[in-house]
Parts: sequence; C-alpha cells; structure tokens
Amino acid sequence: MLKLVGFDADDTLWHSEGYYRRVHDAFEQVLSHYIDVGNDIVHEHLLEVERNNIKIFGYGAKGMTLSMLETAVAMTQERISARHLHEILHLGKDVLSHPVELLDGIAQAVTEVARDYQVVLITKGDLFHQESKVAKSGLSHLFGRIEIVSEKDPQTYRRVLSEFGLPPRQFLMVGNSLRSDIAPVLQIGGFAVHVPYPLTWALDHLEGFVADSENMRTVDSSAQIPAAVHELALKAARLH
Amino acid sequence: MLKLVGFDADDTLWHSEGYYRRVHDAFEQVLSHYIDVGNDIVHEHLLEVERNNIKIFGYGAKGMTLSMLETAVAMTQERISARHLHEILHLGKDVLSHPVELLDGIAQAVTEVARDYQVVLITKGDLFHQESKVAKSGLSHLFGRIEIVSEKDPQTYRRVLSEFGLPPRQFLMVGNSLRSDIAPVLQIGGFAVHVPYPLTWALDHLEGFVADSENMRTVDSSAQIPAAVHELALKAARLH
Repeated sequence: MLKLVGFDADDTLWHSEGYYRRVHDAFEQVLSHYIDVGNDIVHEHLLEVERNNIKIFGYGAKGMTLSMLETAVAMTQERISARHLHEILHLGKDVLSHPVELLDGIAQAVTEVARDYQVVLITKGDLFHQESKVAKSGLSHLFGRIEIVSEKDPQTYRRVLSEFGLPPRQFLMVGNSLRSDIAPVLQIGGFAVHVPYPLTWALDHLEGFVADSENMRTVDSSAQIPAAVHELALKAARLH
Repeated sequence: MLKLVGFDADDTLWHSEGYYRRVHDAFEQVLSHYIDVGNDIVHEHLLEVERNNIKIFGYGAKGMTLSMLETAVAMTQERISARHLHEILHLGKDVLSHPVELLDGIAQAVTEVARDYQVVLITKGDLFHQESKVAKSGLSHLFGRIEIVSEKDPQTYRRVLSEFGLPPRQFLMVGNSLRSDIAPVLQIGGFAVHVPYPLTWALDHLEGFVADSENMRTVDSSAQIPAAVHELALKAARLH
C-alpha cells in the first residue's frame, strides 16, 4: 500500500529556474562592459566555477552569487569595478527574494493527493531560502513535513524514509527533475511521477536516463498528478 | 523519564567562532588599505549589514561572505579593487573549508550520553556546511539524527520534538548558547545543560537572561556533561 507522497519544490510547486536564467542574462550584461560575451562564454565559465564550488557551497542562490562574483573577477582579469560587483551581488539578492509563483493547478493537485496520502515536501538547496519560499507559497499547511536536503540521491531518500519508518515500495515522489526526483527513487524501489518543466539547470541534467520503468508515469501538467498517483498506488497494492 | 538529548554543534562539539573572528580580523586588514579602521568601526558596520541581511540570507558563512563584500563596497565608497574583493571572497571560502577540531573530551561525553539516551544533533546555519562538518567530525555515527534548522526558537524545538513524538519534559538540550540552546528549551518545559564557550557571536548574545531555572545546569567542560545530564534525568523522573 502506498503511504507517503513526496513533492519536489522548485519548478514542481513554483517557478524557479526562470528567475535564475534572468539573473544569468543580467550577469552577462554586466560583464559585457569589459569583455566580449559572445558564444555563451560567460555561462560556460560560470557553470565551470559553480561545478568546482559545489563541494564547498552546496546548491542554492547564495553559492551561485559567490560563484558569479568569482567568475566576474576572473573573466575581467580583476578589471571589474566595485560598483559592478555590487550590482552582481544585488542580482543574487533579487533571486533570494523573488516572489513565489505557483505552477497552474498545483495547489489543487497537492490538496487532492493529501486527501489520500501523507504528503511531504522534499527539496534540495539553501535551507533558509527554501523555508522562506514554503512560507510564502501558502502550501505549508498541506505538508506534514518539510525535508530540506543537501543532495537528492538514493542514500538521502533512504534516510528520509527510515525517519518515516516506511519501505521504499510505500513511497512515491513527484517532481520535474529526472536526476533528483525520479531516478534515485526508482533505484531504491519506489514510485515516481515526472512532471517535466520547460527549463532545467545544466548541473541538474541527467544523461542517458531511459524512462522505461513500470513504476513511473510522466504527466503534462499538475492537474494530471492525482490520477497518476492513483494509478501507481493501485499498482503498488497489486504488487504486495 | 528523559528520552532524548540534543547537542548543539558549533562551539559545543567543535571550535567555530574562533575561525569567524580570525576572518573578521583579516577582513579589517583588507579594508585598512582604504579607510581608517580604528574604533572597531569595520566590525560594527559589518554587524549592521549582517543584521539587515539575515532575513534574506539566514545564518551561515556564505551569507557572512556576501555581507562582508557588501560592507567593503559601502565602506570604501566603491573604491575597493576587484583583487581585494576577491581576497574577501576567499576569506569566506576558508571559513567554509576550515578543519573540524573537536572540543576536548566531547567525543567521550557524547558517547557516554548516547549509552543511556537517544541523541540528536540540532544546529542552525548553512545546511551544506553543517553537514560537511558533521561528516568530518567523526561523530556522525553517534547521532541517530541530524536536524539542521534555520532558527532555534521554541517553535522549532516543538516541531523537532513532535517529529520524535516526545513531550518537552522528556528532552534535554546541551549547548553553549543561552539564546539558541538553553532559553527556548527551558521555555517550552525541557531541560538544559549549558557549556559556555569563551567566544559568542554578537548576534547570538542574549540580554537579561537569568540562569535561575531548576531545570538547567551549567558545567565548565565537556567532561562534566554526562553527570549533569544524569542529575537532571533523575529530577525529570521525580517530577512525573
């Protein structure tokens, strides 16, 4: 029997990646005062710096801001002015305080799922930023628990499930990221509903994933989540 | 009956504030190339910026680094060079990767307490940084659970205890901070062992706290923690 349904947050409950993209564009604009920014060179360099820093900073907007500052200093060979670095710092602050815009139909979908199952929010990233978005979202009353984790891998999902005292076969995860929400949950023997979002952060791409699991459904919109959960729950009941 | 003992992390299990102090001194040193840094003016300004930013950044070293950069730009009236701002960014990275030095006797103390009670680590700050320190500490096997929270107030302690299904009277917290570890736990009806640390961050000071609670003990060193826990546990057993 399915008991617990996890929901991802960024780009599953509310829009997120779009804000990051706009900040990256504004960042490129600042650097264009100093260097030729053609061929996506700024985005490439920033991504490389972020990749190197992730083991010190983890995920989240504060780490991204520090990586933008580092990238700006390096790419301009220390020629960038304090005023422009300050502008970049403010781009980071803007991301940290952007409004929370729910995806169409998601409040209804979570409400419906919460009628039949315990629901939990499982998100990675910056603890403080994620908690403030949950508070602003108006959805926190629906979630029995909010789990903010530093990485969404099989080990993390196992730990969260052990805190609930549940085996993976009683758990289903809903999310937009194949790498973080779907693949690791299928790997430990759980169920998953994939709701693709038009944008995915480069470091969250998953190469070579083939969505052929019987324990997974892909849906086009939030409104289709409850039916997909229900269908997989029936499957879970048949299996055990 | 006492069931659960919580341990704070920074300056309770391992040294922390000393690293921040050294970074603040190095930060002042960088700014001395531009301005008169007498009368603690840099520390005062930084503290003001941190206080304003805490509602966007939360606690932790990444937020502190961003606040140092903001302070440096403001105090030098945008005259600071990219090279010096880069140096400040590296001061932040140093804090994020400093070695974890356990306090004398703490491993033994936690081990002893863990023989009789479930123990949990409860710390505020940056999720990723705290997890990496727990991993480096060699103590993670002793803790059944690690709770990293954005603020240590009565509401947070109540939430953590409800996740364990325990009332406050079955909980005791060990820590160095009157504001974060002791006062809120006493307030909800729990027990507390205070282990003062020689340094306290200015934003973690608690004015006007009078340590006259029957449910609290103050000890001089880690070695005295198990006996203080035991004494309060006997008291808890008598009370109920």
